[in-house]
Amino acid sequence: MSIIMKGSEVAAAMKEELLREVEKLARKGIVPQLGIVRVGARPDDLAYERGAIKKMGGVGIRCKVIELSESIGQADFEQEFSAVDNNPDIHGILLFRPLPRQLDEQSVRNMINPKKDIDCMSPVNIAKVFSGDESGFAPCTAEAVMEVLAHYAIDVRGKRVTVVGRSMVVGKPLSMLLLKKNATVTICHTKTINLEETCRNAEILVAAAGKAAMITADFVSENSVVVDVGINVGSDGKLCGDVDFDAVVAKVASITPVPGGVGAVTSSVLAEHVVRAANSLNGLS
Amino acid sequence: MSIIMKGSEVAAAMKEELLREVEKLARKGIVPQLGIVRVGARPDDLAYERGAIKKMGGVGIRCKVIELSESIGQADFEQEFSAVDNNPDIHGILLFRPLPRQLDEQSVRNMINPKKDIDCMSPVNIAKVFSGDESGFAPCTAEAVMEVLAHYAIDVRGKRVTVVGRSMVVGKPLSMLLLKKNATVTICHTKTINLEETCRNAEILVAAAGKAAMITADFVSENSVVVDVGINVGSDGKLCGDVDFDAVVAKVASITPVPGGVGAVTSSVLAEHVVRAANSLNGLS
Repeated sequence: MSIIMKGSEVAAAMKEELLREVEKLARKGIVPQLGIVRVGARPDDLAYERGAIKKMGGVGIRCKVIELSESIGQADFEQEFSAVDNNPDIHGILLFRPLPRQLDEQSVRNMINPKKDIDCMSPVNIAKVFSGDESGFAPCTAEAVMEVLAHYAIDVRGKRVTVVGRSMVVGKPLSMLLLKKNATVTICHTKTINLEETCRNAEILVAAAGKAAMITADFVSENSVVVDVGINVGSDGKLCGDVDFDAVVAKVASITPVPGGVGAVTSSVLAEHVVRAANSLNGLS
Repeated sequence: MSIIMKGSEVAAAMKEELLREVEKLARKGIVPQLGIVRVGARPDDLAYERGAIKKMGGVGIRCKVIELSESIGQADFEQEFSAVDNNPDIHGILLFRPLPRQLDEQSVRNMINPKKDIDCMSPVNIAKVFSGDESGFAPCTAEAVMEVLAHYAIDVRGKRVTVVGRSMVVGKPLSMLLLKKNATVTICHTKTINLEETCRNAEILVAAAGKAAMITADFVSENSVVVDVGINVGSDGKLCGDVDFDAVVAKVASITPVPGGVGAVTSSVLAEHVVRAANSLNGLS
């Protein structure tokens, strides 16, 4: 019987810890607050925003949404962003990306206070993730994978872990988080020759390629632990991961579903980052 | 017959290109200059410094050594460093590390102008290496490995490359440079289980563990390309790499010796970085 690693269970455990942390802050008169900066109103962003606000509300984190015009110029954008960055009541900032074409993302990456940069935009946090310095903030999705593995007591130490995908939001930072925990990490991508074998040979397989159902039964073995980070729209119009779940589930040791897997943990990591930022900005822990 | 990949051949080819580049700068009235900041006078640093000065001189790059007292305080150190950083005639800065205990390395990492940071201390350059942005400077030794592979026409694209070692000066940045060139990269380290097999399974094996002669004949196959980044003192008191050269050389396709391999290319990369910095700081190419 394969174990289905459910994001909701991980999120529930994280919620308890978050409630305790927020309560501790409240006793010091601090209410952690997330600033959400959104340029325009893309449906995807709005959907994520609704989810994030609900998640934050559920653990006592305040949210402030700063909605800016899709046609805003660089100077005005920087001024608005700077106001959020300098607002002492806002501890973490989430900026929806990509930004519209007229805006320079690099300049905001260099501008954001690294202590409020809870989704790893700043070179300071990127460099920390790369070097294994845990005092920074890793991208939330990459960290969500680590939370799932930890919750299901899957020790990565010394294990062969194959990561498919090398993006800066999942594949690469996740590889560094795994390396920090002493996994032996192989990073695969579209140019990898014999991807099937490399995946099948892994004890833990993380699919973060963004390609619907590309991981079939040939990519796994009986002992595989499979973590699916993909969120795609399948040929049937339904949400699906990078893993062909139905074909793989019976064959492997454990697997995360999509939806209801890693994606369900990401906003919990975001909340954890806001709480950590609130502590750090107030000189606590 | 195994091919011995000699650093001197790589360096000779790089020298020709460097001479051309320096000549081009000269026609614009620019003499590239390296600033070497040394705190104290460790014999290792002095030896590297002599080699670097000789290498720079050979291609027409000027050197300025700023020697500071081993007991210098943070404020004085920052003032001295800042003077070098702001000197428009100095295009690249090499700072010997580790710094003495009383000095804060992190502060100088954040202080250095990323455009003069030719050995990848600044978070800006570290983040660039991680993200695959080639406009920054990678650590010289990591890049020297890429130069050796390129010179000997070893295409890494799609290949299984195993890197042993995960330091921030070689293992990790090199893995990112290899990934950028579309290699399938496996990062191994002291906690890797079954290291022998993982190494033997690689088409290209890079040893950057800092452990004398740890790579024996059992770690390689007939088709292995072996690059040895280690510089250790062996049990016989002689310089040796991470690879047991005599035991491995006859078995593999090609291999770099130690000394005379990657180490002989590092200062050529440093020179190339100074020239690139001189161009970039002057708004050229």
